Amino acid sequence: MRRPKQDRAVHTRELILDAAAGVFDENGFAGASINKILSRAGVTAGAMYFHFRSKADLARAVIHTQSSALEIPEQPGGIQQLIDLTMYLTGQFTSNIRFRAGVRLAVEQGESGLQDYTAYRWWISIFERELVAARARGELLPGVDEASFARFVVASYTGTQVMSDIATARTDLAEQVVTMWRYLLPSIVPPLMLTHYVIDPARKDLISA
Amino acid sequence: MRRPKQDRAVHTRELILDAAAGVFDENGFAGASINKILSRAGVTAGAMYFHFRSKADLARAVIHTQSSALEIPEQPGGIQQLIDLTMYLTGQFTSNIRFRAGVRLAVEQGESGLQDYTAYRWWISIFERELVAARARGELLPGVDEASFARFVVASYTGTQVMSDIATARTDLAEQVVTMWRYLLPSIVPPLMLTHYVIDPARKDLISA
Repeated sequence: MRRPKQDRAVHTRELILDAAAGVFDENGFAGASINKILSRAGVTAGAMYFHFRSKADLARAVIHTQSSALEIPEQPGGIQQLIDLTMYLTGQFTSNIRFRAGVRLAVEQGESGLQDYTAYRWWISIFERELVAARARGELLPGVDEASFARFVVASYTGTQVMSDIATARTDLAEQVVTMWRYLLPSIVPPLMLTHYVIDPARKDLISA
Repeated sequence: MRRPKQDRAVHTRELILDAAAGVFDENGFAGASINKILSRAGVTAGAMYFHFRSKADLARAVIHTQSSALEIPEQPGGIQQLIDLTMYLTGQFTSNIRFRAGVRLAVEQGESGLQDYTAYRWWISIFERELVAARARGELLPGVDEASFARFVVASYTGTQVMSDIATARTDLAEQVVTMWRYLLPSIVPPLMLTHYVIDPARKDLISA
C-alpha cells in the first residue's frame, strides 16, 4: 500500500537530479547553489535534504547517474559496437544534460574534492564487455588485454572530450573521436580485419537499448 | 639603467606565480583566494595588481607557465624521446607544483570559465616536433599524420592523468602511461621497429635540456 508514496519519492529525487544537473552544467560545482537547484526543481529544502545531505552529495549523485538517460545496448557486440557507442556518446553531449553535467563533474573533481572513481569504473566495465565479446569473435590481437585496453579507451575518450570542449565547445568532438579510433584500431585488431570496421559519427543512431 | 627595476619586477611576478600555483594546487580555482596568494607570496595587493588584474588572470598565467620549471630537450629526437618525455612529465607531477597546478587549472576550466587552449596547443607543438624528427628518421608508418597524432597523444595523456589522479592520487600514473604506449606504438611505428623502443618510467631521468 506504500507504492504511491515511493513512486512520488523517486519522482522527486529525479526532479532534483535533473535540476541539479542543469545548474552544475551551467555554473560548475563551485558556482552552483542549493537555492538555484531548489527553485529550478520547484521543491522545498526539506524535500531535498530528505534525499541529499549536501551539494557534494548532489554532485556525487549526478556523477553516478550520468548514464540514466542513455540507451546502452543490452548485449555486447564487439569492436564495431564499441566504436558506435563512442559515437553515440559524442552525440549525447549536445542534448543530454544529465550525461554532460555528470561527465563534467567527474572530470573537475578537484573543485568538489570528491575523488570518486565510480563512473569511470562503470564505463570501463561497459567497454570491457564489448572487448570480451570481440575476443570471442576473434576480433582482438593476442596481446590485447580487455581490461587495460577498456581503461585506455575511457582515458583517451576523456582527454579527447576535455580538449575538444576547451578548443571548440565540442563542435569538433566527432572528428576527434574518428582520429582516436584511427590510431587505436591498428594496435588491437588483426591487420586483415582493419578495413571491416566503419568509423563514422553518423552511426551514433545505430545504438539503442 | 632600468635593468635592476625590471629584474625586480620579473622576480616579484615569479614569486606571485609560485604562490598562486601552490594555492590553486591545494584549493582549486574556486577555493583559492587572492588574500591567501598575497600572504604566501609576501607581497602587497598593489604589487600583485601591477602584474595581474584578477584571480582568473592569475589562473591563466599559471596555465600558460606550467612548463616554466620543466627541462624540455632543445633538440627533438624522435619516438624514444617522445616516450621518455611523457615519463619525465609523469615524474614531475610529484615535485613540480607549477606544472601540477597549471595542468589542473587547464583541465578544470569549467570552474574558472577561461576556455584557454594555449597550453594544450603548446604541448601538441612539442610532441609534434618529436614526430617530425621521427618521420625524418623513418620511424613513422606512412599513414600517420604528425599533427593529429601529436594531438591524440596529448589527449590520451590528459585523460590518463585525470583518471589516475582520481583513482590513485597518481600513484599508478607511470604504470598507466606504460599501458598508453603499449597501445599507441603498434599503430604508428613499423612492426619490425617495435621492439627497439623502451617504455620504462625510469627513463624519465634521461630528459634534460
